[in-house]
Amino acid sequence: MSKLRLKISMSLDGFVAGPEQSVDNPLGIGGMRLHEWVFPLRAWRAMHGMQGGEVNESNAVVEESLVNIGATVMGRNMFGGHPGPWDPKKPWNGWWGANPPFHHPVFVLTHHRRDPLELEGGTTFYFITDGIEAALAQARAAARQKDVSLAGGAKAAQQYLKAGLVDEMDIHLAPTLLGDGERLFEGTGDDLHGLELMRTIAAANVTHLKFARR
Amino acid sequence: MSKLRLKISMSLDGFVAGPEQSVDNPLGIGGMRLHEWVFPLRAWRAMHGMQGGEVNESNAVVEESLVNIGATVMGRNMFGGHPGPWDPKKPWNGWWGANPPFHHPVFVLTHHRRDPLELEGGTTFYFITDGIEAALAQARAAARQKDVSLAGGAKAAQQYLKAGLVDEMDIHLAPTLLGDGERLFEGTGDDLHGLELMRTIAAANVTHLKFARR
Repeated sequence: MSKLRLKISMSLDGFVAGPEQSVDNPLGIGGMRLHEWVFPLRAWRAMHGMQGGEVNESNAVVEESLVNIGATVMGRNMFGGHPGPWDPKKPWNGWWGANPPFHHPVFVLTHHRRDPLELEGGTTFYFITDGIEAALAQARAAARQKDVSLAGGAKAAQQYLKAGLVDEMDIHLAPTLLGDGERLFEGTGDDLHGLELMRTIAAANVTHLKFARR
Repeated sequence: MSKLRLKISMSLDGFVAGPEQSVDNPLGIGGMRLHEWVFPLRAWRAMHGMQGGEVNESNAVVEESLVNIGATVMGRNMFGGHPGPWDPKKPWNGWWGANPPFHHPVFVLTHHRRDPLELEGGTTFYFITDGIEAALAQARAAARQKDVSLAGGAKAAQQYLKAGLVDEMDIHLAPTLLGDGERLFEGTGDDLHGLELMRTIAAANVTHLKFARR
């Protein structure tokens, strides 16, 4: 069975993005601090076309998270740009440039119809307007037996968590406070839907918590 | 220099107590789940006059947290009982019975004057009405060069964190959601005042995060 695998970086105070997210500052104020652990890693650099990088326990976690992924689901806010209907005169094509680091189909949750956007390297963005379950079903079909990555942001993750549809959850806990922004666990209740802590990997600047069903 | 050392159990969604705390349910709904990891441990059982118990990595963390503590500071809510002025007809003497597990002076933050309460085993509760810095100064004097334990609850911890007065912070992260209640990091801003992650110890049912200044 194809799994839905959430991976997300979270601050010690539970935020996955800082306040005042914008096109100029998509992670919100301080949000970059959640991700500092990942940038030096060889696996992350390779995803973004760069050579070299650190090979350590965190690198192994990132490599593992990339294995057997056939499609990605993300929220509109993570895809970015502007709220409301898509503007054909100023098309927003994501944060990732002409050759995004996915290299597989990506399903974007949105309220506004838009034709698929095919970019280089095997990444095509599909815009799904009929809800999280439809998006997941289409992503699973596109993944052809492989797993589906749930890339965020907060609201997309919350919806899938609340519906009990997340099969694995990698939380990269950054030892920092943001103080404000978007919390991962907001309105998600007190039910992890059977997800249990399966593994903790301690690095100097991040703690990797892996949840799954037994 | 005598350090102020906070130790507290926190859920994955950041709560240190559940909702609807009361005399009957001092930890709030679901709050007991934050502490399940500690009850089987030999160190915890010994503190409460019981023999036996598990000896594992978590036990070592608890033992370490008890070393070199000469006094404790806690909030009124953690001491418990009723809000408002103390009722001499129905004296609330804490949750811990005639022989509390502290065995040293305990300073309780409160807005309401009360004479010291001397119980068995070396535990005397002092009720401090002139603020967190005064309570810490008195606790440090009483600790005689040893460190001071900050036992909680949430509001007391928040005040000391926000003032930058916490020198060490042991967060015992329970892999569970409470969904509601009292967050540790609420109104504490985005500043850890120099506290950095120094050590992570992974157990099956809890992750111990130790913060301190370098």
